Amino acid sequence: MTERLQKVLDYIDAHREEYIEELCRLCRQPSLAGTGEGIPETIELVREQIRKIGVEPELIPTDGNPVIYAELEGESDRVYGCYDHYDVQPVDPIDQWESDPFAAEIRDGVIYARGVADNKDGLMTRICAVDAWKKACGTLPCHVKFVFEGEEEIGSPNLRAFADAHPDLIQCDGYVWEGGEKEKDGPCEVTMGVKGLLYVYMKVKTAPRDAHSMYAAIAPNPAWRLIHALASMKNEKGEILIDGFYDDIIPPSETDLSYLDADPFNPEGIREYLGVGAFIGGETDKKKLLYDLYFRPTCNICGFTSGFQGDGSKTVLPSEASVKIDFRLVPGMDPDHIFDLVRAHLDRHGFTDVELIKGSGEPAFRSNLEAPFTKAIINGLEKLYNHPVALKVSSGGTSPMHAFCHKADIPAGMFGASSATANIHAPNEHLACDAFIEMIKINCAVMEELSQY
Amino acid sequence: MTERLQKVLDYIDAHREEYIEELCRLCRQPSLAGTGEGIPETIELVREQIRKIGVEPELIPTDGNPVIYAELEGESDRVYGCYDHYDVQPVDPIDQWESDPFAAEIRDGVIYARGVADNKDGLMTRICAVDAWKKACGTLPCHVKFVFEGEEEIGSPNLRAFADAHPDLIQCDGYVWEGGEKEKDGPCEVTMGVKGLLYVYMKVKTAPRDAHSMYAAIAPNPAWRLIHALASMKNEKGEILIDGFYDDIIPPSETDLSYLDADPFNPEGIREYLGVGAFIGGETDKKKLLYDLYFRPTCNICGFTSGFQGDGSKTVLPSEASVKIDFRLVPGMDPDHIFDLVRAHLDRHGFTDVELIKGSGEPAFRSNLEAPFTKAIINGLEKLYNHPVALKVSSGGTSPMHAFCHKADIPAGMFGASSATANIHAPNEHLACDAFIEMIKINCAVMEELSQY
Repeated sequence: MTERLQKVLDYIDAHREEYIEELCRLCRQPSLAGTGEGIPETIELVREQIRKIGVEPELIPTDGNPVIYAELEGESDRVYGCYDHYDVQPVDPIDQWESDPFAAEIRDGVIYARGVADNKDGLMTRICAVDAWKKACGTLPCHVKFVFEGEEEIGSPNLRAFADAHPDLIQCDGYVWEGGEKEKDGPCEVTMGVKGLLYVYMKVKTAPRDAHSMYAAIAPNPAWRLIHALASMKNEKGEILIDGFYDDIIPPSETDLSYLDADPFNPEGIREYLGVGAFIGGETDKKKLLYDLYFRPTCNICGFTSGFQGDGSKTVLPSEASVKIDFRLVPGMDPDHIFDLVRAHLDRHGFTDVELIKGSGEPAFRSNLEAPFTKAIINGLEKLYNHPVALKVSSGGTSPMHAFCHKADIPAGMFGASSATANIHAPNEHLACDAFIEMIKINCAVMEELSQY
Repeated sequence: MTERLQKVLDYIDAHREEYIEELCRLCRQPSLAGTGEGIPETIELVREQIRKIGVEPELIPTDGNPVIYAELEGESDRVYGCYDHYDVQPVDPIDQWESDPFAAEIRDGVIYARGVADNKDGLMTRICAVDAWKKACGTLPCHVKFVFEGEEEIGSPNLRAFADAHPDLIQCDGYVWEGGEKEKDGPCEVTMGVKGLLYVYMKVKTAPRDAHSMYAAIAPNPAWRLIHALASMKNEKGEILIDGFYDDIIPPSETDLSYLDADPFNPEGIREYLGVGAFIGGETDKKKLLYDLYFRPTCNICGFTSGFQGDGSKTVLPSEASVKIDFRLVPGMDPDHIFDLVRAHLDRHGFTDVELIKGSGEPAFRSNLEAPFTKAIINGLEKLYNHPVALKVSSGGTSPMHAFCHKADIPAGMFGASSATANIHAPNEHLACDAFIEMIKINCAVMEELSQY
């Protein structure tokens, strides 16, 4: 721990209440990308908070909500990039909240608010970290860039176009990326990659309206049709049967695999959290489960709807059947290409009547684990905690890292202090005040480490 | 046409308005078996109408709504049985009705009311036919039995127990059975059998709640599980793969098949009515389609539900998947046995985790086409219309004929005057006043014919 970092951390402790109040203030402002509610007001509030740390943020237009962008000068040439978002999830089901989701009520040292753990906390920790460095030391240890988007919760539809239009602005040594978790007594987790995603809608429509089920003897049933199409795509063993699906996969490296042992993933804990009797195939081996979670693509049915949805019985021949599927992709897989393979598979198997619609797509991304930024995260955090970090080479989930990071091979890491049980996207989203303060410190420690490379 | 029948038909024409008013009165009284609304009042109203034709009806208790039963003496020993129901379908969606479903509003000679075509019309035609015979001729040509149940629209759950407990009461030469259609300028259709039915619910539950879809890489997906179970039960060609499913089928006789040629079924008309591009396998041959409709069992998905049902995308691993299936059965197939075969199939294919729940079951039924009652229907109607009837050896649908008719081999026939487009079970259910009056006459003609055998 350097002396100047210690000064910064002390400053943070001394201004704890002020930082918490700033976070609560931001959380009291709704910012729903879906409806647009509060977006302009939130932008103004974030700009005001950035101005307070001594820089005028730019508002960069996109086809949707603008990106709030700022650059701050520091001592070293290294650039610490921050990707966060100022929009939040909707509040439904509102009746399950114990306090107004935009009241930012603090109970027993925990702030309850929509967005407090996803991701207004992250956004504010970057601003507070800069503030603490400047106030405590008069300067920043490295350059800092803020890229705060406003549409993450609706799938970042304009982020790639933004990144492609502004390669200079997004350039940096690495991104501290929204998300990341640390349990109270657990190791600090650092996630250096994400799976990709392809969302598709499949639909079979055979008639304008449902009919009496006696006609099932002679008229086509769209649910059966879709079931046979789906069964042709994936077998009972879980193998995906779409020709070429696995062809472009870049398998994990020996280095990637070497991190599985130390991964804090706890099979029994996750099994209990999910409430499933067993994992697929009764698997219990941690490394095998992690391999599937990080390195194997999925073809998952998110929803299936056809015919009568009510209670009890109704004898009906449905007119329509539809399914929503998400494919989680691994490096090497291109969402657009996978979509083409699904279409080709359906056609080849005679399912030309099955409509296939493309939803959002995101390639997977893995950070270069040898990059200075990656090392700065690991070493900075290990010095701060005096304990090895738990490095995850990938998340099982998806985030648009690829859009920012792939072309220039910029590493991105997720690390934070909120809990896996913070109820993000759910009622009573919350964050402990202590965790928020810890997260500001984590940012400061990584900035300090990066400045020394 | 006998002289006395002509007198009866003339009487009906002379008292047309009175009969229509009695039907409207009954239709103004709600009688919803599902909720119980208006059931006691409807029973009293029907009893009052039966008392007016000179007999005190019995109310025979069941485990549900009681059966209204009455016997009327006639000249010949033949017994004309009438099976109808006094309950009606729910009115939802109520906002699509152009007039109050219980107002029985008459517009352009058409009565609009819930139950007016299913089956308060049928029930009233039996009462009016007896009334007309008695008033016009002072006596009935044959004995008449009314068996009016009150739970048909919820699947007649207590009808078989009633029939088994009262074999003497249900004995007769044959039943005129609720249902039956005749288009305005079409031939009189007579349907002498029904397909059976087995309704089942299949369910897979893997977790107490939905999870983030990244876990699809390691945790089971109930929708996929159910899809593979279903795909094992029926192939793309529509062949049902459940071991033993087809074993007990009694194939149609040469006589059964001989009626297909004259069946008024119009493939192109039905295809347009259903709104499908083509029948299964592109079949256009009338006899082949009718063979499937009457003589082939089905395994039809009525509804499939799993995971996210809303608009747009949600990346979720569902916790549950469920499907509702109706099997339409043909003679020889026992619903309970078929249920056991489905369970055995699932177990044999490793789907022991798929829950299977039995819903309602009804065996198929076919009337003896050589029985006096069958001949009375055919000959009576041909004499009335001076045109051959269109005899259908089976409906593609199901009705609980088996419960009443199987043990004593009593024939049952459906014939009526309402249209296939009468919106039964739908908003704006309706019946032309002319059709109702015609239906009273049809009953009288068949009673007259039966009395002569």
